[in-house]
Amino acid sequence: MIVVKVGGAEGIDYGAVARDAAQLWKEGVRLLLVHGGSAMTNQVAEALGHPPRFLTHPGGQVSRLTDPKTLDIFLMVYCGLVNKRLVERLQQEGVNAIGLSGVDGRLLEGRRKTAVKYVEDGKVKIHRGDYTGTVERVNRELLDLLLEKGYLPVITPPALSYEGEAINTDGDAVAALLAVSYGAEALVYLSNVPGLLARYPDEASLVREIPVDRVEDPEYLALAQGRMKRKVMGAVEAVRGGVGRVIFADGRVEAPIRRALAGEGTVVR
Amino acid sequence: MIVVKVGGAEGIDYGAVARDAAQLWKEGVRLLLVHGGSAMTNQVAEALGHPPRFLTHPGGQVSRLTDPKTLDIFLMVYCGLVNKRLVERLQQEGVNAIGLSGVDGRLLEGRRKTAVKYVEDGKVKIHRGDYTGTVERVNRELLDLLLEKGYLPVITPPALSYEGEAINTDGDAVAALLAVSYGAEALVYLSNVPGLLARYPDEASLVREIPVDRVEDPEYLALAQGRMKRKVMGAVEAVRGGVGRVIFADGRVEAPIRRALAGEGTVVR
Repeated sequence: MIVVKVGGAEGIDYGAVARDAAQLWKEGVRLLLVHGGSAMTNQVAEALGHPPRFLTHPGGQVSRLTDPKTLDIFLMVYCGLVNKRLVERLQQEGVNAIGLSGVDGRLLEGRRKTAVKYVEDGKVKIHRGDYTGTVERVNRELLDLLLEKGYLPVITPPALSYEGEAINTDGDAVAALLAVSYGAEALVYLSNVPGLLARYPDEASLVREIPVDRVEDPEYLALAQGRMKRKVMGAVEAVRGGVGRVIFADGRVEAPIRRALAGEGTVVR
Repeated sequence: MIVVKVGGAEGIDYGAVARDAAQLWKEGVRLLLVHGGSAMTNQVAEALGHPPRFLTHPGGQVSRLTDPKTLDIFLMVYCGLVNKRLVERLQQEGVNAIGLSGVDGRLLEGRRKTAVKYVEDGKVKIHRGDYTGTVERVNRELLDLLLEKGYLPVITPPALSYEGEAINTDGDAVAALLAVSYGAEALVYLSNVPGLLARYPDEASLVREIPVDRVEDPEYLALAQGRMKRKVMGAVEAVRGGVGRVIFADGRVEAPIRRALAGEGTVVR
């Protein structure tokens, strides 16, 4: 199994991703596709007069403030526009793709965090009533049922909380959970940069490899501390959880999945 | 099998529909839910600065002009917002619902009509490049697979054209095709009126029954000619195609499906 997460940033070539995924699928490679939609969500939110707001957490991570109206927009863009247009592209390539969000068939379940800590003006504050959470469980039975019958799952947040609410959840974490759940051979993250960059946005500073057993070495520790902390630590956890390798690669090129599997980008193993 | 189509007009109580559907499902009634989203699509289209446009066909029917941008909005509202919020409600009622559009797993296939005839200023004109079409095929294998495992399908347009394009297709026709495909015991259309009205919008003019074998009688012929022509003739075709009865009923009340099955609304049999 190969799990591919296609980011939601501008510049990613969804047509190239669909063509490449379809070719691999037809060659017999088992795939799960996961996608984002953040840039488009920001655009639609602006256009609808409900501009995006982000919270910076005490650990430095940034997340989208998700009130009910923001979740409506999130559902429209992720589950409607991005998911169905990607399924449509795959259908045009002759692959019987099926789009699913985490709420469908309880595919992705997790814990809602109603109270979210964030930092503002140097102070730690609490935002209540948010619809965000952490994905914890995958309904593998549903995916296996579809995979066995030849359907290619195209998966998107939100997840479903244990109370049955749609919750905005991190797409990278969804892909990692799926990859660990399947003991995937590879987990590929496609974005609008060539991989992890030591000096973002300098593409010449591409990190070629991060050996999981040396991630504590000074050479790699810096990568795992800064703005890439979440990505690096997520990848390390995935590999420790049984995933063959995690590859951060360029989603703006032809054959992006194939290139990543051939060793382009940043490989964590 | 009972097929329920929930309209997309304002005033319909989706909470009541979800509660009622969940109860019936738990009692062992096999269900397929189909929904619309027209009023919300109009709102979002207005808000996004791409107001809806409608074409009046030579036969008198009215349909949404669907250019690529309109189809984007259609996907956002039908497949994203309405579908996932309905699935979420059903999950909260303890039913493992799964939302699917016609493009997912080629669930609904049909013929795209790229050239659409319409009437303007008394003249018949042709609109080209539209993304609309007629649904003709159902992937029953996919629905059976899900139904057997206890998933309640929540189905929405668009369909997929034979060329692999998402096409805006009439939700009422989707529900009828599903009902005929399953030889459903009943096909229920829930809207924001109590049923078919002889003198719309006078709710006292509710037509209680339309016997299919007497639809050519003068008493019923008038109903089958005016603004209800498409609905009446669609229902007559469904019954002739093997559906037990078609019921047009009120979607603004508690237990709307149960009431319809008990005989409220307009029954075509």
